[in-house]
Amino acid sequence: MNRTELIKQIKLKKSFLCVGLDTDIKKIPSHLLHLDDPVFEFNKAIIDATKDYCVSYKINTAFYEANGVKGWESMERTLFHIPENIFTIADAKRGDIGNTSNMYARAFFETLPFHSVTLAPYMGKDSIAPFFAYDNRWGIVLALTSNPGSADYEQQLIGNRKLYEHVITTTTQIGNTGNLMFVVGATKAEELAHIRKLIPDHFLLVPGVGAQGGSLADVVKYGMNQDCGLLINASRSIIYASSGKDFAEAAAAEAKKMADEMAQYVGD
Amino acid sequence: MNRTELIKQIKLKKSFLCVGLDTDIKKIPSHLLHLDDPVFEFNKAIIDATKDYCVSYKINTAFYEANGVKGWESMERTLFHIPENIFTIADAKRGDIGNTSNMYARAFFETLPFHSVTLAPYMGKDSIAPFFAYDNRWGIVLALTSNPGSADYEQQLIGNRKLYEHVITTTTQIGNTGNLMFVVGATKAEELAHIRKLIPDHFLLVPGVGAQGGSLADVVKYGMNQDCGLLINASRSIIYASSGKDFAEAAAAEAKKMADEMAQYVGD
Repeated sequence: MNRTELIKQIKLKKSFLCVGLDTDIKKIPSHLLHLDDPVFEFNKAIIDATKDYCVSYKINTAFYEANGVKGWESMERTLFHIPENIFTIADAKRGDIGNTSNMYARAFFETLPFHSVTLAPYMGKDSIAPFFAYDNRWGIVLALTSNPGSADYEQQLIGNRKLYEHVITTTTQIGNTGNLMFVVGATKAEELAHIRKLIPDHFLLVPGVGAQGGSLADVVKYGMNQDCGLLINASRSIIYASSGKDFAEAAAAEAKKMADEMAQYVGD
Repeated sequence: MNRTELIKQIKLKKSFLCVGLDTDIKKIPSHLLHLDDPVFEFNKAIIDATKDYCVSYKINTAFYEANGVKGWESMERTLFHIPENIFTIADAKRGDIGNTSNMYARAFFETLPFHSVTLAPYMGKDSIAPFFAYDNRWGIVLALTSNPGSADYEQQLIGNRKLYEHVITTTTQIGNTGNLMFVVGATKAEELAHIRKLIPDHFLLVPGVGAQGGSLADVVKYGMNQDCGLLINASRSIIYASSGKDFAEAAAAEAKKMADEMAQYVGD
């Protein structure tokens, strides 16, 4: 999916919500567990119930890998169930020497046709470059994350700029506004205004609203640009809104609530 | 596998070789391609031929994920074919918020019972902490890697120490010499002496000897400690030593050559 199409979907749905499918087999409703692929059945119901309120689904690979081969099957089936006009993210945080990153790109852009994959930049520019060699595929690079550990390195100064700022400026040498996004945690909303000066036009993927406590209004205030420029992710607060048989309806209600709040910010 | 057992195996085999199973279905001998699981059959032959010359196998997850569900099956079958007295590494370079890293730990320590997994530290201490909550399992944290991009961030100064030095000192707060190793590229051998001052006792996983051009003698000179303290990885130079029907014999010859060179450095 290209940038024009993504912006079109945001304006059409008046939503920039990304629903995170962090589906833990130990947390899904018990009445699904007798089915052949409970994780997929859960995701299918969540997708069918929430697809009108979001423009993106983010599949957190860890939760699928935890189930081994079976989990990889659930991931594949889930990806193919997502409607074509919805932006798909493999939240995989990959990155390795070029030879190996080529293989990760093959995994998430060819074998599994995700629109995008999240990338961990520690090993430098060449470790994520292979992901930018594809048309209409996106690399989403970790910049400033939502967890306490973001203070350990990301926010440390190298010269007069923080590490995450170096990641942003270095990475914009190999990607552009049509194939590169950055992860910026909602719990760091006050830094968004500063980040927008560095990259006014890039899309940002913003986790941390919901279970992690970030504020939607603050993210919009400091992070929105003229094309919206935001995908705000919520995972646990939506998919686990209810642990009963009404889990999909409860997820839809929670997604609708967020989309309704977002609608006031999205122009035509 | 614990540290005592690993050191015992190194002394027994007079080798600290790790064979990297970066198995690309596009590079394996064509006579295997008609089999049901060519990647596993290739790995099985490589393992059977090289197991007396190495103390570790490193499975590079990217090469398996590139084949999707089928690749994850090949990875599982390969892991279970590795003899019990050989240290297994999931070269996966994972790391995420705690909630997600718990799932990656479940994936690589429980569902797939690897002895160790490589970790990317960008997101900070809490992003890799869950991997150190297991007995006899190891986290192997990226410090100074072998690729050109290691100059982009890893070698940048934060205060008077490089980022990778901060990673080492921060990570030793949550892991110890019995469950924490670091990745240090062989192409950076001159920095090994410096790293040994920071962490005299930890094991180091050293890629970059072989196809990437690092020198075994230099790594030993600067990186070996009284317990050996090194696992030196070679991937492509061993597993692709021949592209013909003799690939396993050629891999064995290459592994034996490296082990013979290593034997002169390992005491009884």
